[in-house]
Amino acid sequence: MNVVESIRLKRDGGEVSPEDLRELVLAYTRGDVPDYQVSAFLMAAFLNGMTDAETDTLVDAMLRSGEVLDLEAIPGAKIDKHSTGGVGDKISLILAPLVACLGVNVPMISGRGLGHSGGTLDKLESIPGFRTDLSVDRMKTQLGDLGVAMMGQTAEIAPADRKLYALRDVTATVEFIPFIAASIMSKKLAEGLDGLVLDVKVGAGAFMKTPAQARELAEALVNVGQLRGCPTVALMTAMDQPLGRTIGNWLEVAESVDVLRGGGPEDVRTLTCALAGEMLTLGGRTSSPAEGAAQAAEALDDGRAWQRFVELVKAQGGDAGAIESPWDRPELEPVASVEAPRGGFVQAIDAFRLGVASVRMGAGRARKEDSVDAFAGLTLNKKVGDPVGEGETLVLLHGSDATRVAEQAKEVEAAFDIGPTPASAGSLIRGRFDGGGWNDT
Amino acid sequence: MNVVESIRLKRDGGEVSPEDLRELVLAYTRGDVPDYQVSAFLMAAFLNGMTDAETDTLVDAMLRSGEVLDLEAIPGAKIDKHSTGGVGDKISLILAPLVACLGVNVPMISGRGLGHSGGTLDKLESIPGFRTDLSVDRMKTQLGDLGVAMMGQTAEIAPADRKLYALRDVTATVEFIPFIAASIMSKKLAEGLDGLVLDVKVGAGAFMKTPAQARELAEALVNVGQLRGCPTVALMTAMDQPLGRTIGNWLEVAESVDVLRGGGPEDVRTLTCALAGEMLTLGGRTSSPAEGAAQAAEALDDGRAWQRFVELVKAQGGDAGAIESPWDRPELEPVASVEAPRGGFVQAIDAFRLGVASVRMGAGRARKEDSVDAFAGLTLNKKVGDPVGEGETLVLLHGSDATRVAEQAKEVEAAFDIGPTPASAGSLIRGRFDGGGWNDT
Repeated sequence: MNVVESIRLKRDGGEVSPEDLRELVLAYTRGDVPDYQVSAFLMAAFLNGMTDAETDTLVDAMLRSGEVLDLEAIPGAKIDKHSTGGVGDKISLILAPLVACLGVNVPMISGRGLGHSGGTLDKLESIPGFRTDLSVDRMKTQLGDLGVAMMGQTAEIAPADRKLYALRDVTATVEFIPFIAASIMSKKLAEGLDGLVLDVKVGAGAFMKTPAQARELAEALVNVGQLRGCPTVALMTAMDQPLGRTIGNWLEVAESVDVLRGGGPEDVRTLTCALAGEMLTLGGRTSSPAEGAAQAAEALDDGRAWQRFVELVKAQGGDAGAIESPWDRPELEPVASVEAPRGGFVQAIDAFRLGVASVRMGAGRARKEDSVDAFAGLTLNKKVGDPVGEGETLVLLHGSDATRVAEQAKEVEAAFDIGPTPASAGSLIRGRFDGGGWNDT
Repeated sequence: MNVVESIRLKRDGGEVSPEDLRELVLAYTRGDVPDYQVSAFLMAAFLNGMTDAETDTLVDAMLRSGEVLDLEAIPGAKIDKHSTGGVGDKISLILAPLVACLGVNVPMISGRGLGHSGGTLDKLESIPGFRTDLSVDRMKTQLGDLGVAMMGQTAEIAPADRKLYALRDVTATVEFIPFIAASIMSKKLAEGLDGLVLDVKVGAGAFMKTPAQARELAEALVNVGQLRGCPTVALMTAMDQPLGRTIGNWLEVAESVDVLRGGGPEDVRTLTCALAGEMLTLGGRTSSPAEGAAQAAEALDDGRAWQRFVELVKAQGGDAGAIESPWDRPELEPVASVEAPRGGFVQAIDAFRLGVASVRMGAGRARKEDSVDAFAGLTLNKKVGDPVGEGETLVLLHGSDATRVAEQAKEVEAAFDIGPTPASAGSLIRGRFDGGGWNDT
């Protein structure tokens, strides 16, 4: 492999051979090719594009840069879900035990919050004692016993992605669909899955702001999955206003417990059941997503999902007592509130703005090293379409650092658009892509 | 300055502000911006282009990254010449003392041979004792005394160019006119010149292979010079076959001595006089390049140029005795020769191929660290258009390592195209650009 020749080829609009591209990724991961050559290559690819074959090679090289889990010994299908990230998105906490209790294994590897959106690991770790740093062996054992394990990325999985992502972040080469797809899929495909469901968020609070962008990303992700032999389905779902009524780690655990016990906000329940329906169908347990969604709703209502969640918490060292009455915590006493400046109907809620405010209140990280306040966050009393009277409470603000929390009240208020005419939120699920084409749902 | 924002702007086809671009270059030179960000920026610029204003800012930042010579105290005009590099191009050795003896100062800073073309410094240093590592003070003194000084690049001049060039070389971002122009002009403009003449080579033995490429480079170089307030003229000159009849350091010194004494090959004399005419006119000594060229021819014929060259050699520590009879050296005894495989006329001589063969014989460097054999090289008995009989000698091969030299005989032979019909070399000077437009000459 001649690195300069590969850069020149990509610079001149050519297609790099699978051998050269694979070796470039692997040599870079080993430290045998310097950052400055790879960043020139990334920029050339960003501007001149990547063919489907190149994207496929990139994914393959990245996933093979580290350990690829072998879950063959565990009976039954192994299906995971990945979300491109939203505000108030606590779906994974509910979905993983729910799908597991219906007979499909969920080996879920999640990330931490960074930027304006929260992370599943931070939410789980707000449960006292809960450990997410499972070894691969421990994960396999638990998957065999319980059908579900929720853990963090290990250093062994797709190290090329970590190194490439850090480089893209400082060289303005992040927002390129083939790179985004390769980053997501290399990690997921290294889990040794039989199928994958993607929740591609679209809207002001999502990474992809427009339906066209979200559709392009969904198609790229599904195509990569199919090409690599992993059946993959994507739902495109709304991320304009936050999902559910809570933002913040413990607040989202509490809301998840509500949904796991058959209650909770309708949007969270609906999206969870839709994603569960896809996972159960990919896992061969139901013959259609609709049938799977109906079974999921039953399992939420009859206590099976809740039961499995409690077992999961116990298996990973968490305090099951703490999740019995999660709302009864003195730390959740609101330290501030935001009232409606005028009466009318909530026209829109800027999820991105609320996500950023929550992070500043302590619910997330501005930098990787920052620690997180489990109790910081927002409770939304009003959502899009709700009527509201002047002076009525829109949002409660929580967190242990009262000054820091109160500072965000203005930002939180500015996220609400209240107008005189009735409004509605629009559909939650905006489309479905399984490689064959798009279904509007 | 936010480096990622500047990369993103260039990536998206925007124009970077003078402040941000200048700071990017200076911070990089200081080591405050890493290679990997600059290489991403270079690739984005390569693919999306640079505006004239950006190129001007780049040149300005690069030249200001180090010392800018102040030659104000030396009376008279200071004019230099730069060639984009060819094979057998010994013009500088003749031109610098020639122009100086006609009353225009020549503060010439040259480079070493790298790649297939030789370097003026290597040629000068083949004169026993000749020092090219002058300090700036010594150079100024000599310029005041003799009107000419020939030295190597110091570490203080345009350090940004050295760092950027090394990075471009390993990231496939070399062949981009604005970068090439900035690299050349930042070094030249740091010399504190009153005018600059460029010899832009075109043809198989040049960096620019086609007239269109050479024209584009010439225009970019002249525009940069004018924008920076330095009157600049470019001649586009032929580099298909080698210039003159010698390739190799001492061989080219010997041929230069012939020209300085009023003899030597016609093409070398003609090009030297044409460039001298431009320099004398820029320096205000003559009212037209043609008048200047005529004065130059006189100074070659009447011994003034030779006289000044001898003084230059002495001033820089060289052995003036050694250049009195430069051909009378036992080391120049040919170690091999190449004969015509058939009779006819020389149709073409591939200068690039002969340049590469000479380097392999020891006349130049494959890597920066390599040492150079002063006596290695080629004497061309035949040039384009010459009639040749079967078995007649085309080239003599010289060098201290006979095996290494003889190995190149096949390459040298392959560089000659001999055919049955009469042929001619075409004009030596292909065009002239002074910012106003092109004159064919």
